[in-house]
Amino acid sequence: MRFLCDNTGPITPATEKPVPDNAPWITYRPEIKVLDCTLRDGGLVTNSHFSDDFAKALYDTCLEAGIDMMEVGYRNSPDAFPEPKYGKWRHSREEDLRRVFGDHDAARTGLTLSAMVDAGGKSDWRKHDVPASESVLGLMRVACYVHQISEAVEMVHHYHELGYETTINVMAISIVGSAELAQALEVAARTPTGTLVVVDSFGNLYREQVDQLVQLYQAAAGDGRHVGIHAHNNLQLAFANTIEAIILGCNRADASMMGLGRGAGNCPMELLLGWLRNPKFKLRPVLKFIQEQILPLRARYDWGPSAPYYITGLYNQHPRAAIAMREGPAPDEYVEFYDSTTAEL
Amino acid sequence: MRFLCDNTGPITPATEKPVPDNAPWITYRPEIKVLDCTLRDGGLVTNSHFSDDFAKALYDTCLEAGIDMMEVGYRNSPDAFPEPKYGKWRHSREEDLRRVFGDHDAARTGLTLSAMVDAGGKSDWRKHDVPASESVLGLMRVACYVHQISEAVEMVHHYHELGYETTINVMAISIVGSAELAQALEVAARTPTGTLVVVDSFGNLYREQVDQLVQLYQAAAGDGRHVGIHAHNNLQLAFANTIEAIILGCNRADASMMGLGRGAGNCPMELLLGWLRNPKFKLRPVLKFIQEQILPLRARYDWGPSAPYYITGLYNQHPRAAIAMREGPAPDEYVEFYDSTTAEL
Repeated sequence: MRFLCDNTGPITPATEKPVPDNAPWITYRPEIKVLDCTLRDGGLVTNSHFSDDFAKALYDTCLEAGIDMMEVGYRNSPDAFPEPKYGKWRHSREEDLRRVFGDHDAARTGLTLSAMVDAGGKSDWRKHDVPASESVLGLMRVACYVHQISEAVEMVHHYHELGYETTINVMAISIVGSAELAQALEVAARTPTGTLVVVDSFGNLYREQVDQLVQLYQAAAGDGRHVGIHAHNNLQLAFANTIEAIILGCNRADASMMGLGRGAGNCPMELLLGWLRNPKFKLRPVLKFIQEQILPLRARYDWGPSAPYYITGLYNQHPRAAIAMREGPAPDEYVEFYDSTTAEL
Repeated sequence: MRFLCDNTGPITPATEKPVPDNAPWITYRPEIKVLDCTLRDGGLVTNSHFSDDFAKALYDTCLEAGIDMMEVGYRNSPDAFPEPKYGKWRHSREEDLRRVFGDHDAARTGLTLSAMVDAGGKSDWRKHDVPASESVLGLMRVACYVHQISEAVEMVHHYHELGYETTINVMAISIVGSAELAQALEVAARTPTGTLVVVDSFGNLYREQVDQLVQLYQAAAGDGRHVGIHAHNNLQLAFANTIEAIILGCNRADASMMGLGRGAGNCPMELLLGWLRNPKFKLRPVLKFIQEQILPLRARYDWGPSAPYYITGLYNQHPRAAIAMREGPAPDEYVEFYDSTTAEL
């Protein structure tokens, strides 16, 4: 279990002294690795339109803050997600990545770059043939709905043959029956994937449900792979659920800068890094990035907890109706939205 | 334990059919009672300036939503909190309460009205001589810092002699040593008070600490009195910590409309009511009140999670520096605030 901090005193700021990960006196879990999904899940807010400067500043922030993984975007098909409606971070082409991240070296920097690939015709994954040794990416995260698990398995094998690490992220699990989910996890656990990620797409889960799901995923993952957590903030529980998963033993956690992500957003990176006790994590560069790069986005985009996203989360629905309502002419008509959401419940 | 909801389906909306509290098939805890602290903790945002219309609309909302207790404000001394700097909800005089709430009848409506009384010279509690039988108030919540526990004990006895129920709310416990807190609770538990409230004034606690504290309070409270929870949202954990306390057996929970309360605010009422399974709680009137009465306040007042309140919460400090910074000329200078907060840590 992560170091349980003493509630009677302030948190000691991170020391600059390098700490050997295997020191017997370590009071944190060095195995915990954090993934920044700002460009990827935030791309669902901006249609993946981010400037190169934004992406480079985020990359520099991840390096400074000690973040372990940075998801640069989706690697989706331009046919399914045409430009210019969707920006380049929806496709994550090697040439765009090279231009911004140069000759990124994961081993030297300690930062792994990842992209998300969707099943179900959203990505032309069979055409992806750049091996990991020639890519700035080291990790492909395979996202699927539960009925697409067979394709996800093929995708995992495809990317492992190319030398990438992978994760399997079954989405929208709060509307999946437990028997079906268990089957999907059993299938996923037969692949060479390194991580099974608990994904609360609708932001519907609270602690007791997170407990059950993490235990289910841990049983499927066994000793050979990790369990991760990807939370949404509809019920203002994204950070709490991420903490909970970590307390239960999850060593992979997603977060984004100021929670930038679809609808109510994700677990805010600043909260997660402040809570983790590994002194390699630095809060200051994250706050700087938020101040300089995220706050300006607030004027143009809507994300983060508000009543409409709360209502879809509570009633376990996709946030699309809430997103449309927030982008429409009456973003504060909470009661009307509540009535329409619950009309047939 | 509260009914653990099935994560595979939507929540069933509240039935209109009256439910007998002692039915053997009940899957919620009818003992859980919710207190609205919008006027009181929100009064720390507005200096207790709220219109009579706002207070009456809140009262009507509490009645409609099935909320059990409504805290109308502080009963503090006008000498310590002079008008017009502070509004009437800082003093909660009987004549003001009568004007707004009329001949409120707790037994008939199921709603108890409360006021908060501070130790330490902030209130002239010895001069309060209206017995409960002649007051619209039924509950006096005694707030103190740990070193004021002896005065709090006197206050509890004073108000019980007048016929009021009481609670003891020891504040700022995240900076109190566990031995001192245990002593204070032991003293509090010798009084006739009905509830000991876990108060996270600085919004510093997370789940494992809430667990420890709730267990400490439960041990002190014994079988004869309740344990309550009052959370702040600096770490976006107010709702999560309130849930946690309830799961552990707390039957008294504070919340406020859209979290209106000092600094990062409180547990949002809308989140709490949506989570509780007692069908007497209604979400719609709360959303209506937020839409009509709370949203207009957002233009004038700052509350709710943001980086400065997060920083004071994380470093276990009173939010006053963050409040001053948010009210000053540079409310978004997060890095500067981080540097000044951590300069001597």
